[in-house]
Amino acid sequence: MATHKLLLLPGDGIGPEVMGQVEQIVSWFGKQGLGSFEIEKGLVGGAAYDAHKQAISEGDMKLAQDADAVLFGAVGGPKWADVPYQHRPEAGLLRLRKDLGLFANLRPAICYPALASASSLKPEVVEGLDILIVRELTGGVYFGEPKEIVTLEDGSKRGIDTQVYTTPEIDRICRVAFELARTRRNKVSSAEKHNVMKTGVLWKQTVTALHAAEYKDVELEHVLADNCAMQLVRWPKQYDVIVCDNLFGDILSDVAAMLTGSLGMLPSASLGAEDPATGKRKALYEPVHGSAPDIAGKGLANPIAMIGSFAMALRYSFGAGEAADRLEGAIADVLGSGTRTKDIAAPGANAVSTSEMGQAIIKAL
Amino acid sequence: MATHKLLLLPGDGIGPEVMGQVEQIVSWFGKQGLGSFEIEKGLVGGAAYDAHKQAISEGDMKLAQDADAVLFGAVGGPKWADVPYQHRPEAGLLRLRKDLGLFANLRPAICYPALASASSLKPEVVEGLDILIVRELTGGVYFGEPKEIVTLEDGSKRGIDTQVYTTPEIDRICRVAFELARTRRNKVSSAEKHNVMKTGVLWKQTVTALHAAEYKDVELEHVLADNCAMQLVRWPKQYDVIVCDNLFGDILSDVAAMLTGSLGMLPSASLGAEDPATGKRKALYEPVHGSAPDIAGKGLANPIAMIGSFAMALRYSFGAGEAADRLEGAIADVLGSGTRTKDIAAPGANAVSTSEMGQAIIKAL
Ligand SMILES: CC(C)[C@H](C(=O)O)[C@@H](O)C(=O)O
Ligand SMILES: CC(C)[C@H](C(=O)O)[C@@H](O)C(=O)O
Repeated sequence: MATHKLLLLPGDGIGPEVMGQVEQIVSWFGKQGLGSFEIEKGLVGGAAYDAHKQAISEGDMKLAQDADAVLFGAVGGPKWADVPYQHRPEAGLLRLRKDLGLFANLRPAICYPALASASSLKPEVVEGLDILIVRELTGGVYFGEPKEIVTLEDGSKRGIDTQVYTTPEIDRICRVAFELARTRRNKVSSAEKHNVMKTGVLWKQTVTALHAAEYKDVELEHVLADNCAMQLVRWPKQYDVIVCDNLFGDILSDVAAMLTGSLGMLPSASLGAEDPATGKRKALYEPVHGSAPDIAGKGLANPIAMIGSFAMALRYSFGAGEAADRLEGAIADVLGSGTRTKDIAAPGANAVSTSEMGQAIIKAL
Repeated sequence: MATHKLLLLPGDGIGPEVMGQVEQIVSWFGKQGLGSFEIEKGLVGGAAYDAHKQAISEGDMKLAQDADAVLFGAVGGPKWADVPYQHRPEAGLLRLRKDLGLFANLRPAICYPALASASSLKPEVVEGLDILIVRELTGGVYFGEPKEIVTLEDGSKRGIDTQVYTTPEIDRICRVAFELARTRRNKVSSAEKHNVMKTGVLWKQTVTALHAAEYKDVELEHVLADNCAMQLVRWPKQYDVIVCDNLFGDILSDVAAMLTGSLGMLPSASLGAEDPATGKRKALYEPVHGSAPDIAGKGLANPIAMIGSFAMALRYSFGAGEAADRLEGAIADVLGSGTRTKDIAAPGANAVSTSEMGQAIIKAL
């Protein structure tokens, strides 16, 4: 049995707590002989800055490069509001994405039946919702140059960000979207602003050409990003896979996550290109939620998004689709039985702690 | 009584139909002696392209420059999908915004009590909602240079868009937001992505400095744009005025509009700087909805957003706040009495036509 190298980067806030539960689950899978895992741990975000004045150290970057998968908790908090910009907690995450070449960010937005009532949307709008946002993660306005603030002669300042996309960058992310659509409901909605942005024009041309050349069996629709945000609120079930650039993906995936009423429960996967020699791809798995500093250390955090992220690692990095199904099934069972952390419990109802939720999931496995 | 010069640019799709209703209302106000209006008409969007191969002609731009207010319908449709990029229907709107210097776009998102049930959100989440998005409209990624697609040596292409903001540009839009907040619930939420964008860093610094210097009486909060989109879905009533850049404003205002269940009913105002000599400001008023080519010419369109846009013109361009209140009151009365165009009627219920809705509002005036 191949040994999988896992790097755990718990980060800040509730990151370490929810990561603690994943550790229990990884060790359960190991003990059952369902996988062999070698675990390393590192620091990222504010925790890394406190330790060595950098949002991620060179040593931990090296571990990330060598790992079969990185599990990432969350970063940031008021404690680091004033650290120099290049060392802000998010810089650690952005560097991991960029340096590992994790161009494909998969964000499923699934409405757990047991939680439909927690959504701010009407039950009929979100019940059974299962959409997947495929977000480009290493390009666009996040990384384009120039990206700077300059002081002008009159003392005022000018800020600049640059959005850049090349056809190969657009092609490879849209390919991921089409491939995934084929395993789902066979529809891709490509969101951009071609009416305003040249990168949008290129995006639309490129996805259209790729579709015509290789994916005619998949339904392709084009939607303006602003309209897509609207339509997600109006009737999200019209979508299957939505593919978009880094910045639109940031916003659209947050809207989609919030629809489900399960924000604390949604995982994500960030994948690199397949190495033709080894067939392996670099990967990082992280919850969609943030570091929630206000509830950190209190045992209140919901570990399900982090645990679900490990399930995605089982599926996408370790070729262990059945183990992933089993873990996701255990999560659904625990929710079905009414076990709730505070964030998803009805007001005034009993809630379990972070570790009780983790234990319940292990028991249901 | 001063005569107000109005330029009507109905545009494409349902634009001419809804503009027709505004004409009736303008003429009603004139006949009642509640204002004196001089009306010019022009072409914009696809209609302008058909007539003279440009999304707006120099002659109509001149009329727009001379008008006290422009009423704009909507532009675009499949008919013009293949016109050259610089002549696409949207180019007419973008040129009007830029050349008239309409930097402040005001988009109220109001949930009409009679329509709360039309929202996809739960009634308690949207009932009584009244928020205002103040969107910067002449800068950012919409207009920054370079903005181009270049072909690279290997035959692939690269698209580039540039987001630029200077401190004076940020300052003047945030000033508008603070001033408007003072007439409302006294809170401004400034949305950007300072964790990723340098223009976001500059935005946050500039609004913070302006607040400290001149608007300490207004509550200011900073929110990341992705989180803001989420929070709009979760609990929109936490907001009063949201101020943001051109691109975030495009998306956030669409999300906010959709929450209300009143998409066909929301107006917007785009305002320029006050001319120190005359005290006047250039202005354009347009519905938030688009040209809806699928229902154009059928008498199905809801004219309320367009009529509400004229009410905003009365308030912001003609100093006729009372007349604006009266017109808005008439709209609310008509809705309260159950009159509905098809877009807001319950499935299977009776609906009135575009012109019947216009007539009902005149009757209620
Ligand atoms: C933390 C931040 C840099 C990040 C982003 O903007 O990508 C986050 O919002 C996300 O969506 O993962
Ligand atoms: C038509 C289009 C250019 C425009 C924009 O992106 O600003 C529209 O979406 C809007 O919000 O007014």
